Amino acid sequence: LSAALPDVEIHYAGSAEEAAPHLSRTQILYGWGFSADLLRKLGAVRWVQKMGAGVDDIVGDWPFSGDVILTRTDGRLIAPRMVEYVVGAILDMSAGFDVARRLQRDRQWAFFEVGSIQDLTVGVAGLGDIGSGIAQTLKSLGARVVGWRRSSTPVRGVDELFAGDESLLDFVGSSDVIVLVLPLTRNTDRLFDANVFDRCRPGLHLINVGRGAVLDEQALLAAIDSGKVARATLDVFAVEPLPQDHPFWNHPKITVTPHVCGPLVPDKVVPHFLKNYEAFERRQPLRNVVDLARQY
Amino acid sequence: LSAALPDVEIHYAGSAEEAAPHLSRTQILYGWGFSADLLRKLGAVRWVQKMGAGVDDIVGDWPFSGDVILTRTDGRLIAPRMVEYVVGAILDMSAGFDVARRLQRDRQWAFFEVGSIQDLTVGVAGLGDIGSGIAQTLKSLGARVVGWRRSSTPVRGVDELFAGDESLLDFVGSSDVIVLVLPLTRNTDRLFDANVFDRCRPGLHLINVGRGAVLDEQALLAAIDSGKVARATLDVFAVEPLPQDHPFWNHPKITVTPHVCGPLVPDKVVPHFLKNYEAFERRQPLRNVVDLARQY
Repeated sequence: LSAALPDVEIHYAGSAEEAAPHLSRTQILYGWGFSADLLRKLGAVRWVQKMGAGVDDIVGDWPFSGDVILTRTDGRLIAPRMVEYVVGAILDMSAGFDVARRLQRDRQWAFFEVGSIQDLTVGVAGLGDIGSGIAQTLKSLGARVVGWRRSSTPVRGVDELFAGDESLLDFVGSSDVIVLVLPLTRNTDRLFDANVFDRCRPGLHLINVGRGAVLDEQALLAAIDSGKVARATLDVFAVEPLPQDHPFWNHPKITVTPHVCGPLVPDKVVPHFLKNYEAFERRQPLRNVVDLARQY
Repeated sequence: LSAALPDVEIHYAGSAEEAAPHLSRTQILYGWGFSADLLRKLGAVRWVQKMGAGVDDIVGDWPFSGDVILTRTDGRLIAPRMVEYVVGAILDMSAGFDVARRLQRDRQWAFFEVGSIQDLTVGVAGLGDIGSGIAQTLKSLGARVVGWRRSSTPVRGVDELFAGDESLLDFVGSSDVIVLVLPLTRNTDRLFDANVFDRCRPGLHLINVGRGAVLDEQALLAAIDSGKVARATLDVFAVEPLPQDHPFWNHPKITVTPHVCGPLVPDKVVPHFLKNYEAFERRQPLRNVVDLARQY
């Protein structure tokens, strides 16, 4: 950023303490890990750019009125790797690698019939830039794709769209695999609870790459242990890092990955920031502005 | 088959002993596991249809002259699941699931940067129906795809084609992942040997879904243990079932699957046979005739 904006005064801070001396004069805040306390100390801020696609850590306690803009990273910058994570997670189960690992451990040569993604209905909950990228790739690989979102706006790659809270249980009951790509808002907080897991298809593979708290972790454990849910692949958790004594860690039917699947890399996020900066300077509309009422 | 061909005399045999009484009168032989000894006892045979895409078990000792036709199963019948196996194997490494499994075992939350298939060059050796299906899907997922085959006939989805023995080492040196989909013939027997592994890119992921004996298993082990080859995902082996004491079983960098990735299912192979049967009856050319000189 310093190289691209030589005339702009830029301060880097790795902690609230390092940020403190600059907060009263900061006009643009760029990064992540902003507490409500830190935000309230901003005296001159006009624009906050979150480095990350999720803003659940900010929107719940946003201290400003309408004249401060909040933007977030464009999901399209991180979608490709998230798509690959989801496809890899599905194929691990459908192509039988999970079964093969158990056989290999026991030096056991036993034929089993592998499945095909072409025989699966995959449900994608959350159809923003990332969710719709996932839907399109799964469709191109031959899956039947159903989607769930707030609005009924159609999405390319989605064979059947379920819209709104009233259709959630039908969506869940239609899917062999469910991929959660939902933002965490007051409406999605622990949305996937015991009631929802009760309605899922037997053998469900649940994949969460959005935000951990959109599901009730205890209810998920109970649904897995009762045999209702066959497997979960989770990159996000209600509390991160996942606590050392959390039952997910050593569960044979749960794959834990440490929030790795949507990495922000400088060569993607910096150009994105600079484009928004240019618009900001020219007093033109910014991209990826957060709707504070919807909370995403 | 009995339902579709009520006027044809059909005998099922699960062993050479069960087959023996019928061999002298058999005109069409359909199935797999045919020894040269069994084939030599056929007195009236005019057509052998192998149930399977590979005919390496038959062509080396084919006892007939030109008037007996040998056909094999169309690779397109089994390609979709083989494509999914290969994509799943690549993503397991590139999207970091292998690293995540080790972290999970140790309850360790440690960020690592996942890779992308879009940054990989994948080499496909063998570009028949199965190999070209693999190439096209990998291309659609954003990989750079290079191919190796005997002839220089271009293939859709292949960015760069290497043709013939003289280009094998250049092909190997161009690939981050190599997928072997080669038939086993006198030309491919242990083709991937120490000399070839010496020329591979560091960090190579080798995937074999064709025939085990196209690679030298001891040379592969040495290349992995020297750090030259990072990982191998193997569905096929020189000796199957893989012997209990084989070093592949407990090798941390080798994934063993028990020859599962190209299953033959009745609802695909029976219609394929019936189409060929119809052509045979009408004395029209059969499909998927094996070239006995090329051995595939």
